Amino acid sequence: MVALGGGHGLHASLSALRRVTTDVTAVVTVADDGGSSGRLRRELGVLPPGDLRMALAALCGDDEWGHTWSEVIQHRFRSEGELHGHAVGNLLIVALWELLGDSVAGLDWVGQLLGAHGRVLPMSSVPLDIVAEVEGVDPARPTEVSTVRGQVACASTRGRVRSITLVPEEPPASPQAVKAVLEADWVVFGPGSWFTSVLPHLLVPELADALVRTPARRMVALNLSPQRGETDGFAAHTYLEVLAAHAPRLGVDVVLADPGVVEDTRLLRAAAESLGGRLVLADVAAADGTPRHDPDLLAAAFDAVFRAGGG
Amino acid sequence: MVALGGGHGLHASLSALRRVTTDVTAVVTVADDGGSSGRLRRELGVLPPGDLRMALAALCGDDEWGHTWSEVIQHRFRSEGELHGHAVGNLLIVALWELLGDSVAGLDWVGQLLGAHGRVLPMSSVPLDIVAEVEGVDPARPTEVSTVRGQVACASTRGRVRSITLVPEEPPASPQAVKAVLEADWVVFGPGSWFTSVLPHLLVPELADALVRTPARRMVALNLSPQRGETDGFAAHTYLEVLAAHAPRLGVDVVLADPGVVEDTRLLRAAAESLGGRLVLADVAAADGTPRHDPDLLAAAFDAVFRAGGG
Repeated sequence: MVALGGGHGLHASLSALRRVTTDVTAVVTVADDGGSSGRLRRELGVLPPGDLRMALAALCGDDEWGHTWSEVIQHRFRSEGELHGHAVGNLLIVALWELLGDSVAGLDWVGQLLGAHGRVLPMSSVPLDIVAEVEGVDPARPTEVSTVRGQVACASTRGRVRSITLVPEEPPASPQAVKAVLEADWVVFGPGSWFTSVLPHLLVPELADALVRTPARRMVALNLSPQRGETDGFAAHTYLEVLAAHAPRLGVDVVLADPGVVEDTRLLRAAAESLGGRLVLADVAAADGTPRHDPDLLAAAFDAVFRAGGG
Repeated sequence: MVALGGGHGLHASLSALRRVTTDVTAVVTVADDGGSSGRLRRELGVLPPGDLRMALAALCGDDEWGHTWSEVIQHRFRSEGELHGHAVGNLLIVALWELLGDSVAGLDWVGQLLGAHGRVLPMSSVPLDIVAEVEGVDPARPTEVSTVRGQVACASTRGRVRSITLVPEEPPASPQAVKAVLEADWVVFGPGSWFTSVLPHLLVPELADALVRTPARRMVALNLSPQRGETDGFAAHTYLEVLAAHAPRLGVDVVLADPGVVEDTRLLRAAAESLGGRLVLADVAAADGTPRHDPDLLAAAFDAVFRAGGG
């Protein structure tokens, strides 16, 4: 199983996938420019490690060892000083990169430390920037389209994101990520920040090509709520339309959605079918009403889809 | 075996001890106020981790796993930014302290990570400052005695250090360190910065008491060269005189010295005997002429002393 994404969405899909398979590979967006990752990227010229760290933590071993090291890498310093906000795992990952000179080997070492149930790979071997075409950044001119650069700026824009591109424009894919996609049984897109975590994979040419060519079946796991700014006002089917616009050749076998967030089932089913797939509705939201996936429910939904086969 | 000290001297004794025994405990000075440790201490209010980290690295496992994680914890960031100079292991140790709320448990976790051949303990549970009485800080007034505060200031003073005290004055010992001393077969003082790494142990009352009361035999491993500032102009026997001045009740069973640094063997033997011990001369210096201990030679000298028994 290969899971594509970044941030909290990928953490959710990995937390579920580890419950139903022993063979998970996460392919992670490397375009973050905010917080601890952004600072490390600017100070040391490395890939932003934060989304990779979070994915590794989601796959940590089940024993005291795995849980403790997972808490260590997720720990953030709090102070009035220079370390404030840095996540310890980000520093550890970067140290391994500097020492080994190989981003995948460094991540594999942290995976071993955690006893991780799977592997975490960057989607590209170079740090990326997301550039978005955004409509209505200035509320006074709601139809004007402007360009916004950087993951933080794109994710928090007051306008409506229409499409994204990457800088550099055709970045090299991580060869291990391409291989994992080509050898997978299933590839899972999302949940996650649609423009800034899920779609960037489709703009890395070798990775996009592998995602189209792979014999794996493809699932899209939809979000539970629109993300303020980035996907404000999105209906469930809008996610699929945007996906298709960024990857016209990509077929989809299954679209997984929580019935609670589908306003119009017929529209969504039609959108899924137009991509060549079927719609699966399953309760996957946390019981507390927050727009978070419940890992056990999401795992059960994944498992049912995988068992049924797809397409 | 219990080794007392800090910094590079303790790293040397531990590198040797791990070659001759599987049961090493390092009891480490926690008075550093410089570099990465000093910054962490000021920013986060924790024990200075640097000497503890270096001791753990010296005890790392012999396999690729142990060596790699040892290199990781010793790795320092180099940049123009806020992380410059921080050692990764310092950050990892501090994170474990913040997470577990227990300095010894945190060090034990890092020891487990490294597959360490032994245990590393802080001599006190609180950060300490060294205050030195120094003669001739101002070269124009060579006999004037003044007070210098802080490990860095004491270690680099242009005057001659006469004695040290600690702030706080009677700090609590680490109970595990006291226990280790009381249960040891041998306790090894030095090599290391005499006033700032070796003698501080004798100013922690419960630890000093344990060092006097323990049935263990006591060895003093002398330095290969005086340390600029701190012990400038020291003859070999001066180290013993200063030791006796700081711990009048402490007996010593063996004084280990490299013959190359002993100007007057009779004087040194007399000083050793006045503490109740015997002098052992052995070539322990590195072949390259630098004032470093060769770990294999130092191990052989330790082993010979341990096999002969002492006293």
